[in-house]
Amino acid sequence: MTSPAGEGRTEGALDPAIAARLKRNEDGLIAAVAQQHDTGRVLMMAWMDEEALRRTLHSRQATYYSRSRARHWVKGESSGNTQYVREVRLDCDGDTVLLLVEQTGPACHTGAPDCFEADVLLRPESTPPAA
Amino acid sequence: MTSPAGEGRTEGALDPAIAARLKRNEDGLIAAVAQQHDTGRVLMMAWMDEEALRRTLHSRQATYYSRSRARHWVKGESSGNTQYVREVRLDCDGDTVLLLVEQTGPACHTGAPDCFEADVLLRPESTPPAA
Repeated sequence: MTSPAGEGRTEGALDPAIAARLKRNEDGLIAAVAQQHDTGRVLMMAWMDEEALRRTLHSRQATYYSRSRARHWVKGESSGNTQYVREVRLDCDGDTVLLLVEQTGPACHTGAPDCFEADVLLRPESTPPAA
Repeated sequence: MTSPAGEGRTEGALDPAIAARLKRNEDGLIAAVAQQHDTGRVLMMAWMDEEALRRTLHSRQATYYSRSRARHWVKGESSGNTQYVREVRLDCDGDTVLLLVEQTGPACHTGAPDCFEADVLLRPESTPPAA
């Protein structure tokens, strides 16, 4: 089991050159989208503060910030369904990172492979769109 | 060219059964991740309010809400780089939608194919992770 307290004691701060490129929201957070690196499946969306990003880059274990619990969490710290992080990419306006991960087990707390499985609001049309 | 004004005159409100499942942030917005439907490429992240989601579901043209400009925008309305929406999926906690789209032209305003091209914060390790 990963210890968030132990992680917290890791020395250092986020690379200032990276920190300067982040466009945090009013809560100091950026969005983080996790994608399975080989299948392309989009797994989930969560939030990171600077420290969560630092820990993710340092440990390669996806680490987010929970707004409701007001604390960092290592994905899978209780379920074992961790995300090993292969790549991290920052978007053009600096408010979202894309994590390319190797997901262990299901990504969603419901047990689904990803968080977008259950609720389809719009399905493909049976005919292709007009040109 | 799509007319946002024309879109705005479309009758109706978002399906109340869908609206009830949305978990909007303090600004009334949900996150929207656009993914190219066939390649799996994650293109961009933007925001939607209820009306942007309604227009997207109704028109199948990805329509977002710009926080900086405080207005709706149809993706590609000025550039022509539109997103035809094949599927929309709501995540397990109702605060993010995944759009599976057919992107015309580059998705990013920089001219890059997607918004995560330019800034790589972490690259794959040359050796696989320890088991």
